[in-house]
Amino acid sequence: MTIFSKIIAGEIPCYKVAEDERFFAFLDINPMAKGHTLVVPKLAEPEEDYIFNLDDKTLADMMVFAKKVALAIRQVIDCKRVGVAVLGMEVPHVHIHLVPLCRESDMDFRKEKLSLPSEEMASIASEIANAVK
Amino acid sequence: MTIFSKIIAGEIPCYKVAEDERFFAFLDINPMAKGHTLVVPKLAEPEEDYIFNLDDKTLADMMVFAKKVALAIRQVIDCKRVGVAVLGMEVPHVHIHLVPLCRESDMDFRKEKLSLPSEEMASIASEIANAVK
Repeated sequence: MTIFSKIIAGEIPCYKVAEDERFFAFLDINPMAKGHTLVVPKLAEPEEDYIFNLDDKTLADMMVFAKKVALAIRQVIDCKRVGVAVLGMEVPHVHIHLVPLCRESDMDFRKEKLSLPSEEMASIASEIANAVK
Repeated sequence: MTIFSKIIAGEIPCYKVAEDERFFAFLDINPMAKGHTLVVPKLAEPEEDYIFNLDDKTLADMMVFAKKVALAIRQVIDCKRVGVAVLGMEVPHVHIHLVPLCRESDMDFRKEKLSLPSEEMASIASEIANAVK
């Protein structure tokens, strides 16, 4: 069971942003920017780790779910737009990074990650969750 | 008319990889890695520049089109997987970067881009195009 499946199952705590029957979104614990969110599908074991191995419908629906979350992030976080990245080598469970961007160089996986107080993470997650339509 | 619309219209040459009625894929002229491809929707003017402003169906279908292209890239290019990035601040026309990755750090918009001979670009594009199902 991947760490993301444990998060979805509630076995590991997270700052949850959105959930429906098939997808789940929560704040990246080591964010590149405030509001950096991960969108993951709820998957049976063994979890698929490569986004382009998902069937067309799951892939398509996951993007539409990610869009809802991204629109909410942009409402809450001061940013120009929300960027998308899928690398998929960190955790073997498909996940989409949604990263608030003010400029192109904000999408930088090499730069030092933020470490925010848990009260602030909880507050960001709650604001985004309230903005999700 | 964006440079991408001019490419789609054939007014500016490109190394085309795939096309259907609504989407178009071609090699990034300044690739992060061999096989780095851009997927764009065919849009009316003024072209939309933010992926999450696309309607749900266009967004969903664009990802399924990108998947086809990504599977072909992975067949042709020596890589572990094909990563995804959407920043969208370079050209004001929605586009998805598909980047062949061997390791996570290969997704790096700051590193110096490759400059490949046109014969090699043409050959890569043609191989990927032939692998698209």
